[in-house]
Amino acid sequence: MSRLDSYIRRMQAQKLCLDRAAQLIGTRPGPILELGFGNGRTYDHLRELFPGRKIYVFDRQINPHPDCVPPTDMVRLGDARETLPRFLEGAPEPAVLIHTDIGTGDKTASLRLAQDLAPTIARLLAPGGLVAGDQPLPDDGLEPLPLPEGVKVGRYHFYRRRA
Amino acid sequence: MSRLDSYIRRMQAQKLCLDRAAQLIGTRPGPILELGFGNGRTYDHLRELFPGRKIYVFDRQINPHPDCVPPTDMVRLGDARETLPRFLEGAPEPAVLIHTDIGTGDKTASLRLAQDLAPTIARLLAPGGLVAGDQPLPDDGLEPLPLPEGVKVGRYHFYRRRA
Ligand SMILES: C[S@@+](CC[C@H](N)C(=O)[O-])C[C@H]1O[C@@H](n2cnc3c(N)ncnc32)[C@H](O)[C@@H]1O
Ligand code: NI
Ligand code: NI
Repeated sequence: MSRLDSYIRRMQAQKLCLDRAAQLIGTRPGPILELGFGNGRTYDHLRELFPGRKIYVFDRQINPHPDCVPPTDMVRLGDARETLPRFLEGAPEPAVLIHTDIGTGDKTASLRLAQDLAPTIARLLAPGGLVAGDQPLPDDGLEPLPLPEGVKVGRYHFYRRRA
Repeated sequence: MSRLDSYIRRMQAQKLCLDRAAQLIGTRPGPILELGFGNGRTYDHLRELFPGRKIYVFDRQINPHPDCVPPTDMVRLGDARETLPRFLEGAPEPAVLIHTDIGTGDKTASLRLAQDLAPTIARLLAPGGLVAGDQPLPDDGLEPLPLPEGVKVGRYHFYRRRA
């Protein structure tokens, strides 16, 4: 399979997981955290799925499309290994959904980053809160959920915070 | 429709047009030109569809994934407004397929660039040669082809060089 094929499938998997998350969450309250903003394509999708929700954005730097500029007070710039624990210290409302899209070309480094962030991610979620991500998030507090139909195992990752 | 949705559809449209081009071209000879190499995702797909073909690559700079590094002698670095006419002057073999993926965030500039390149693109193609691209390519020598099923008009662009 070409890199174009697998890229398309990964983008579809991302979309399908987020669409499923929106169904599961319904009107349950809580903010959303987007880890890895990039140019805001996924952010735009989250805004559409969850109108009116607070969406916090974490990235080293953001490069938003003009249509997708997040409000300044919702942006946390810096290495997620620092910004995420600092955010947690601020005792925020528990998140209803966290999305991670933090992979770079370096597979080992991406896996490692997700592994490092997983415990903080689990603690940021409300019990029953969801996390969808491009990398596995190994943490005892996170229970793997079945993937939406059409998403191959390993292409995306989907968990629920244990109660 | 969110930017994620329309991005996925654009990537699918690209893939479907290139897959169709491969069917139409079959074993007809001639090199392929990839305008806008980026990180080489589409290049990888072209390599798979057309094993053993010469694929020339044009971009201001290339940022290849380690699996998708093109041979140095196939790369033409610089602004396509300069590299493409220079390539044509070298009286290359007529191309059997040209793919353009040269859009940037600036829609007007992208349309303009494609418009500027269209006549050179038409001249680089063999009669009956194909061009698929992310931007319209207005030129009398290029006849619009029907898009593959599932590709909405305007999402991708597909032409044949008139005989
Ligand atoms: C959307 S990206 C291409 C992505 C690529 N198909 C891939 O699979 O990674 C567009 C590319 O067009 C290139 N580009 C834009 N304007 C250009 C110009 N005037 N001359 C040469 N390259 C240009 C950019 O440098 C960028 O790499
Ligand atoms: Ni726009
Ligand atoms: Ni690879």
